[in-house]
Amino acid sequence: MAGNTFGKLFTVSTFGESHGIALGGVVDGCPPGLELTEEDLQVDLDRRKPGTSRYTTARREDDEVQILSGVFEGKTTGTSIGLLIKNKDQRSQDYSNIAGSFRPGHADYTYQQKYGFRDYRGGGRSSARETAIRVAAGGIAKKYLEQVHGIKIHGFLSQLGPIAIDTIDYSIINENPFFCPDASKLEALDEYMRDLKKSGDSIGAKVSVVATNMPVGLGEPVFDRLDADIAGAMMGINAVKGVEVGDGFDVVTQKGSEHRDTLTPEGFTSNHSGGVLGGISTGQDLVVHMALKPTSSISVPGQTIDTEGNAMEIVTKGRHDPCVGIRAVPIAEAMLALVLMDHCLRHRAQNAAVHCTTPVIPGSVK
Amino acid sequence: MAGNTFGKLFTVSTFGESHGIALGGVVDGCPPGLELTEEDLQVDLDRRKPGTSRYTTARREDDEVQILSGVFEGKTTGTSIGLLIKNKDQRSQDYSNIAGSFRPGHADYTYQQKYGFRDYRGGGRSSARETAIRVAAGGIAKKYLEQVHGIKIHGFLSQLGPIAIDTIDYSIINENPFFCPDASKLEALDEYMRDLKKSGDSIGAKVSVVATNMPVGLGEPVFDRLDADIAGAMMGINAVKGVEVGDGFDVVTQKGSEHRDTLTPEGFTSNHSGGVLGGISTGQDLVVHMALKPTSSISVPGQTIDTEGNAMEIVTKGRHDPCVGIRAVPIAEAMLALVLMDHCLRHRAQNAAVHCTTPVIPGSVK
Amino acid sequence: MAGNTFGKLFTVSTFGESHGIALGGVVDGCPPGLELTEEDLQVDLDRRKPGTSRYTTARREDDEVQILSGVFEGKTTGTSIGLLIKNKDQRSQDYSNIAGSFRPGHADYTYQQKYGFRDYRGGGRSSARETAIRVAAGGIAKKYLEQVHGIKIHGFLSQLGPIAIDTIDYSIINENPFFCPDASKLEALDEYMRDLKKSGDSIGAKVSVVATNMPVGLGEPVFDRLDADIAGAMMGINAVKGVEVGDGFDVVTQKGSEHRDTLTPEGFTSNHSGGVLGGISTGQDLVVHMALKPTSSISVPGQTIDTEGNAMEIVTKGRHDPCVGIRAVPIAEAMLALVLMDHCLRHRAQNAAVHCTTPVIPGSVK
Amino acid sequence: MAGNTFGKLFTVSTFGESHGIALGGVVDGCPPGLELTEEDLQVDLDRRKPGTSRYTTARREDDEVQILSGVFEGKTTGTSIGLLIKNKDQRSQDYSNIAGSFRPGHADYTYQQKYGFRDYRGGGRSSARETAIRVAAGGIAKKYLEQVHGIKIHGFLSQLGPIAIDTIDYSIINENPFFCPDASKLEALDEYMRDLKKSGDSIGAKVSVVATNMPVGLGEPVFDRLDADIAGAMMGINAVKGVEVGDGFDVVTQKGSEHRDTLTPEGFTSNHSGGVLGGISTGQDLVVHMALKPTSSISVPGQTIDTEGNAMEIVTKGRHDPCVGIRAVPIAEAMLALVLMDHCLRHRAQNAAVHCTTPVIPGSVK
Repeated sequence: MAGNTFGKLFTVSTFGESHGIALGGVVDGCPPGLELTEEDLQVDLDRRKPGTSRYTTARREDDEVQILSGVFEGKTTGTSIGLLIKNKDQRSQDYSNIAGSFRPGHADYTYQQKYGFRDYRGGGRSSARETAIRVAAGGIAKKYLEQVHGIKIHGFLSQLGPIAIDTIDYSIINENPFFCPDASKLEALDEYMRDLKKSGDSIGAKVSVVATNMPVGLGEPVFDRLDADIAGAMMGINAVKGVEVGDGFDVVTQKGSEHRDTLTPEGFTSNHSGGVLGGISTGQDLVVHMALKPTSSISVPGQTIDTEGNAMEIVTKGRHDPCVGIRAVPIAEAMLALVLMDHCLRHRAQNAAVHCTTPVIPGSVK
Repeated sequence: MAGNTFGKLFTVSTFGESHGIALGGVVDGCPPGLELTEEDLQVDLDRRKPGTSRYTTARREDDEVQILSGVFEGKTTGTSIGLLIKNKDQRSQDYSNIAGSFRPGHADYTYQQKYGFRDYRGGGRSSARETAIRVAAGGIAKKYLEQVHGIKIHGFLSQLGPIAIDTIDYSIINENPFFCPDASKLEALDEYMRDLKKSGDSIGAKVSVVATNMPVGLGEPVFDRLDADIAGAMMGINAVKGVEVGDGFDVVTQKGSEHRDTLTPEGFTSNHSGGVLGGISTGQDLVVHMALKPTSSISVPGQTIDTEGNAMEIVTKGRHDPCVGIRAVPIAEAMLALVLMDHCLRHRAQNAAVHCTTPVIPGSVK
Repeated sequence: MAGNTFGKLFTVSTFGESHGIALGGVVDGCPPGLELTEEDLQVDLDRRKPGTSRYTTARREDDEVQILSGVFEGKTTGTSIGLLIKNKDQRSQDYSNIAGSFRPGHADYTYQQKYGFRDYRGGGRSSARETAIRVAAGGIAKKYLEQVHGIKIHGFLSQLGPIAIDTIDYSIINENPFFCPDASKLEALDEYMRDLKKSGDSIGAKVSVVATNMPVGLGEPVFDRLDADIAGAMMGINAVKGVEVGDGFDVVTQKGSEHRDTLTPEGFTSNHSGGVLGGISTGQDLVVHMALKPTSSISVPGQTIDTEGNAMEIVTKGRHDPCVGIRAVPIAEAMLALVLMDHCLRHRAQNAAVHCTTPVIPGSVK
Repeated sequence: MAGNTFGKLFTVSTFGESHGIALGGVVDGCPPGLELTEEDLQVDLDRRKPGTSRYTTARREDDEVQILSGVFEGKTTGTSIGLLIKNKDQRSQDYSNIAGSFRPGHADYTYQQKYGFRDYRGGGRSSARETAIRVAAGGIAKKYLEQVHGIKIHGFLSQLGPIAIDTIDYSIINENPFFCPDASKLEALDEYMRDLKKSGDSIGAKVSVVATNMPVGLGEPVFDRLDADIAGAMMGINAVKGVEVGDGFDVVTQKGSEHRDTLTPEGFTSNHSGGVLGGISTGQDLVVHMALKPTSSISVPGQTIDTEGNAMEIVTKGRHDPCVGIRAVPIAEAMLALVLMDHCLRHRAQNAAVHCTTPVIPGSVK
């Protein structure tokens, strides 16, 4: 219980359901003096918000965030920051039919069993709509990380169904509706998604997040390792079923002589580790991948049971994303930003400063 | 900082270095009245301990655990449980040569940079030797889970380098030194490991853990989801680089109609989800996989730098496991047990009892 | 940092400044199925709100609370509850003069020094206005405690300056503007406060809170004792400088033979302990007292310094309570409710149920 | 549950019972590079240990602490520190008679009711013997506070029964068995205690702790205020029933014009606040008082019940302190040190450094 707070020193506590009055949260632990406006947070909210392309749900939400406290004369005061996003385009009637049944692949069944009772409108609290506040809070962390430490976070789609990304060009990620860093794949993605929408089905995806200009030293072993906290954060995003750091599952068939990243006076010569050794950042790029399942809300009919346990057929109506992986990109960035900011503060508590020791070598290989 | 405590209600705080006086910890939050002896914990410690087969490090440790408190007349009292394992076979001289250099693939570099100073003997706190206490604490959780809820936890090797496991027979896992559930692969494993040792190299592995007889309802969304906490726990084990729940990275190419697990009055007809929906257990088997990198301590010479930043060649002596994945099996079991016990208590805090609602359907498909 | 969350299992995270847009918070960990409406919370908010009598500040705030999430069809869902109270009667111009100086006895100086920067309007986050959200959150706890465990919480003024209360009649507490349980003292209080207002000065007070119908067994030694958590909660209320449980400072001159409460088959024969032994509730009435300093915002001129360190004279204008102790009564009740609810859930996590063991004796003496 | 950890960034998790094998704990979050030896911790353990004067229990324990980890080559490494104190002079037979009854004023009844079961030997976990580990951990904090911030902590007896202390001379505190700072009261104390011992009764006491050379800015409002955390820490010491900061309960009859501490360019001219405003340290001396009840273990016969609920007479044998307040002095110092260190780290996480802003004025008045 009490599972709605993320972080230890830089914390985010959230509330809100898909079809409730509003989403909101409290961000606590932001150092004073950071310049912060609602516009800073709106950038990523606009990247995440629904209805921006034909590939996402048709629900229309402005997702305008209000900063209710913690900022005075344009700067954070060091006190807690209240965030609020009002829901606007709830159409609860769309969901009245699911009150009495469990959509397969959804949290309907587990929420009902856990709490004995659920807000069935649009999935209630289990809806990914909840992540809007994570994105807003992550925006604060992103600004801090970039301004104070120069850390930048780049999220992108690295695979959608059968279409894998080959080349990574950060500069085009925000220029296309797929957050795809590979221009040569845009047409294939567009075609695939059109066909998918026609079929009424959905598809899985792989999303990657990379943090560049990382300091050495973030992470608190033995349990609160940087990679452990990242894995928890990513697996906690709706629909994520797998998380990798660096080479991930490829290490299963690697030999030690092949995997270990050589150190030279000029820096590491490879980055199999993904920028973490022993749970602590190496100063190299931090590389994280995650697998997102296809959304379970599809118009392809399926079998399920009603809340009394009787068999029935179900067709999920409503407005849904055929590939939740796409809009997960800014969410994954936000979660990585929250983890990194928390660890910057945690590291600073114990040491003089992040980047305090001059690294023996630069974290050269990306 | 303060990263040496795991869990929220059932917590384990640990201490100890590879070549220090002792390893130990405090287990807090164990309900009173559980029958508990040191022998209960020794079983898994013996499975994890080094020197039991030719495939592991030659370091010999009895890893005998002492329960120093919290148990009276054979039963837990509800107060904190002190655990202690004395180190016996430290050979610090083996490591004196690494005081001045950074072993590639190890945490030497990151510990030095983070803390400005490190206990270099056998890797100090970054050594996997630290996990002995996790296994002891996990033994308490295992006993509780089985006695109170009937939950059983099965860990096994599912791949070692190129050798993947095809069939799973829990009954033979503890009968072979690889924790391999597939009798047909034992010979191949033996041969592969002999050759590997000769070459002085190491190899990666995939380890799986399955919890059977799971209750419905464990997990605390939106952040403390059961799968999120499991991912954090597993990625926090030394050498782990990837974690999957259920179908894991296979979901990237799955369609929604294929992935979603159908509910019927008799139960689920498949288990693509791995037993978690919306961050809450479904009552099906909980299925977790993880990838472990090859150990970086190998006798194959490699390039690195000394603590002054000068290039040098390194050959890691000392006594090491050629495949850390093998001994990770009881560690992964322990971590899963710790997560599940924590969530049993957290669920109970908010609800009448685990298993309190009669599940609408049995969690039939494993 | 991150000091804006209270509780471990039943948590309240708050935000908001005296003259900001709104106050709000997230209540996490409330069990599902509790009937809850905004009216339930408004009762205590109305008791705390300013402008209700001539003895309190003239600032007028409706303090209308909105429940933004976590309640569906009139019942809590087990997910986080968002609370919001909009500020209405901010008159920031009243405070423009304090931007450049430190009011003696206020947090102006310490906030400025800690954060290097402060929201000076009405004291910003340091204003007791922030406690409105504590009262709203405490209302949820109060309802739970009464409905599930039958526990009732009674706060009252037990001394105001020289006027000490002699008899305690719970039934009249809410019938007078002083929350005074002694009808014979009302006239003296009224007269004292009139004179005080004329003088432009302020006065200290003693406030007591008693929980009746307590279960045995709440409290988690050795650190999270019930009395320790209560002391922290009460000392965390603005202006509180002392906290007592049971006989409090009177124990300094008591002998053991006098202090110890005798147990008989019919129950305890006295309650010197105030209902806590070894940090765990005895089942007797829980008795807590606290001392509140006189408000430092008075119109009696005083010496201070400006933010440059120069001496200056100050007269605090604005609208203030001449005795903050009065309005602290519902705040103290709320904090006690939050502590008790947190401990009910914590106890339940570890044991079958609160009140699970039949007490050997009733907790008879109040 | 899980109430055996103290602190948020600098944490201490403890275990051990009065008559168990050993007491121990894990100290986590200590910055690296602090010079630390067992002798550093032994100083306060020796001040707390039993059997050092005729005024304390006759139980003889060396209370020798072992540092099991976290220190390498004489300095802390930044990893967790394991502490162990073996019990030596257990005489469990002394307590066999209390297995079946509840000593009045003790935690016997509440532990039995909470856990359904208790380690009755010497009070088990509820015994103040547990505080030895707090004193050891506090020794680490004390050393850090003094070396890094120059903060010094002075605990002393300020009243014993009817004998109140008038003058405070820190230099004699450790020169007498009462931790009394007033040489003129030593004879009276000696006489009073002799008489008390003869009577078989016990007496209450008041203990004070003062931290000098405090920085401005420690404390994390609104809940984790410095004074709130101190109150929780002190009320969590065995036998404490009341806590005051600064003027404490005297504020009840003070006027605002009298209580508020005037700021001048040369510093504060008084210290009614006790060094905390708005939950944040002012830089003045931090002044804390606490009331300790008389020990309930006395040889004066009393009435109680047995575990079946039948009335019986009880005479508590065993070896007990006639005034637990005396040995509480080093414990109170340790708890204050733990709180201050935690807050130094918490403050540093959010800000550049403790003492980072030059205080506008010195915190002059003590």
